[in-house]
Amino acid sequence: MKKFINDVEQVENEMIQGMVKAYPQYLKQLDGYNVVVRAEKKEGKVALISGGGSGHEPAHGGYVGQGMLDCAVAGAVFTSPTPDAIYEGIKAVDSGAGVLMIVKNYTGDVMNFEMAAEMAQMEGIEVKQVVVCDDVAVKDSLYTIGRRGVAGTVFVHKIAGALAERGASLDEVQAAAQKVIDNVRTMGAAIRPCTVPAAGKPGFELGEDEMEIGIGIHGEPGTHRETLKPANAIVDQLLEQILGDLDYEGKEVAVMVNGAGATPLMELFILNNHISDVLAQKGIPVYRTFVGEYMTSLEMEGFSISLLRLDDEMKELLDAPAHTPAWR
Amino acid sequence: MKKFINDVEQVENEMIQGMVKAYPQYLKQLDGYNVVVRAEKKEGKVALISGGGSGHEPAHGGYVGQGMLDCAVAGAVFTSPTPDAIYEGIKAVDSGAGVLMIVKNYTGDVMNFEMAAEMAQMEGIEVKQVVVCDDVAVKDSLYTIGRRGVAGTVFVHKIAGALAERGASLDEVQAAAQKVIDNVRTMGAAIRPCTVPAAGKPGFELGEDEMEIGIGIHGEPGTHRETLKPANAIVDQLLEQILGDLDYEGKEVAVMVNGAGATPLMELFILNNHISDVLAQKGIPVYRTFVGEYMTSLEMEGFSISLLRLDDEMKELLDAPAHTPAWR
Repeated sequence: MKKFINDVEQVENEMIQGMVKAYPQYLKQLDGYNVVVRAEKKEGKVALISGGGSGHEPAHGGYVGQGMLDCAVAGAVFTSPTPDAIYEGIKAVDSGAGVLMIVKNYTGDVMNFEMAAEMAQMEGIEVKQVVVCDDVAVKDSLYTIGRRGVAGTVFVHKIAGALAERGASLDEVQAAAQKVIDNVRTMGAAIRPCTVPAAGKPGFELGEDEMEIGIGIHGEPGTHRETLKPANAIVDQLLEQILGDLDYEGKEVAVMVNGAGATPLMELFILNNHISDVLAQKGIPVYRTFVGEYMTSLEMEGFSISLLRLDDEMKELLDAPAHTPAWR
Repeated sequence: MKKFINDVEQVENEMIQGMVKAYPQYLKQLDGYNVVVRAEKKEGKVALISGGGSGHEPAHGGYVGQGMLDCAVAGAVFTSPTPDAIYEGIKAVDSGAGVLMIVKNYTGDVMNFEMAAEMAQMEGIEVKQVVVCDDVAVKDSLYTIGRRGVAGTVFVHKIAGALAERGASLDEVQAAAQKVIDNVRTMGAAIRPCTVPAAGKPGFELGEDEMEIGIGIHGEPGTHRETLKPANAIVDQLLEQILGDLDYEGKEVAVMVNGAGATPLMELFILNNHISDVLAQKGIPVYRTFVGEYMTSLEMEGFSISLLRLDDEMKELLDAPAHTPAWR
């Protein structure tokens, strides 16, 4: 295993510390926890909290700041954070207007966030949640009942975060987050796996001419393996499944071409070249495109495509200012 | 060779098209050339043009937009753009106030940008240049006489770009760019090489326990090979060489921890954790830190550290607004 690390036991701690030291204008760490909150707490607004395992950087700490999240909780690599850490985060960011938890649909995350919410509710904090389930590749997976939550989660952070910043109520922010979830679909593929530091070996193996279709974001295999095809053919395949799942016809969309961690930007742009052409041919206008690393899986070489159907309110919230390490 | 591409002959063309289709609010392409310019030309200002081989994305097209570059010219992967393409770029962005070329010190780039400048000067366009040479690893390299220009180039784009946006003269913008060059130093290391699509095999080979020290950004080997060390020890080694080259004591700095293309953000943050600690111990205050992929080498797994000494003017220009795909 070749990595720029010091100690497999310390990767999460050192990562969080290195992130907070890089961006003190946006972030601070809660003492004793791998939990980051805004450098300056904003009082009187609904607080947004998200998180999950480490290894998805810049998610989720990179989205903490004005206009997006108030708090991100990081577990061990690809492992849910514990309820006590989530609970500390909820307490730190609540300012009386309530807390919305944005949870990706993985069994461990859902269970631990719910336990934390119960602990906070017993203290009188109003907590609601949404569960993101944008991955069209699988219905149930190794880690999840129902669809997995993947890169589309970042759109939930952005749009719900912008609405919360304007002083909307907890119910309104929850409804906006749910509207994003109802309108976003994602699917991905990979040509190289990643290695969880504590495991020391890749999560799966691929032959020199193989790719994995329908990958999640926890280093697990996808739905099946195929012979590697040209980029455009892979795009066609993923888009067919996404567009077959929701009626995008004539709807303006936001596109996210998300790198899994080791995919060169050159290749993401080559992929977007065809994504853009296909959507144009199908009469689906693209309002905004985001190409880069938004929700990664360590050094996996892969990508996902997310398509979000937009209405005027969502367009405005998507474009609203944000001041965070990874979305500015 | 496993890549998300269609045709090795088309990677540069499809990359540029995919970038422009992703960010039409910032960019447009010059017909017939892999040259991107701002979507809306700003008249009456000094125009900044940069570029080089492809494979360094988001450099340089990702830095075209308000507050940074006016034009980026892309050659084949790791190959200088041709003088005629650079010349077309110069003509497209000049609006009478003159053009500053920001060239990385590689022999091919320097030669071709100078030829283009001569062609433009014959047409009466005022063209000046700066040559970035921030890499402290080598004096002369396979491709360069003198030090190579690497990730520090992005600071030149940012600071000179912000000054040009305010209406400064060509001489003033050139002086600001040169001041950045005089105050920035960079050094890098890698644990996995990258593969130029047209070559089909990696530029060098590394054993399972080896790292390459002093890498450039064109997939070439560095100065020497060593046994892989813990992240903190690598940071110590690179910082020692950077800090030994310029007197940083007591100066505020901007830090860039640049991923080479396949390095997970988790590892870049782990590296920054120690960089930040070492600078604090040495009494070098960090004004801003930038962690991410700014100047890549396809899917090389490596990183570089850049340290820029700042004064008040540079701090203000560094923080000034920019609206580009990769720096916002």
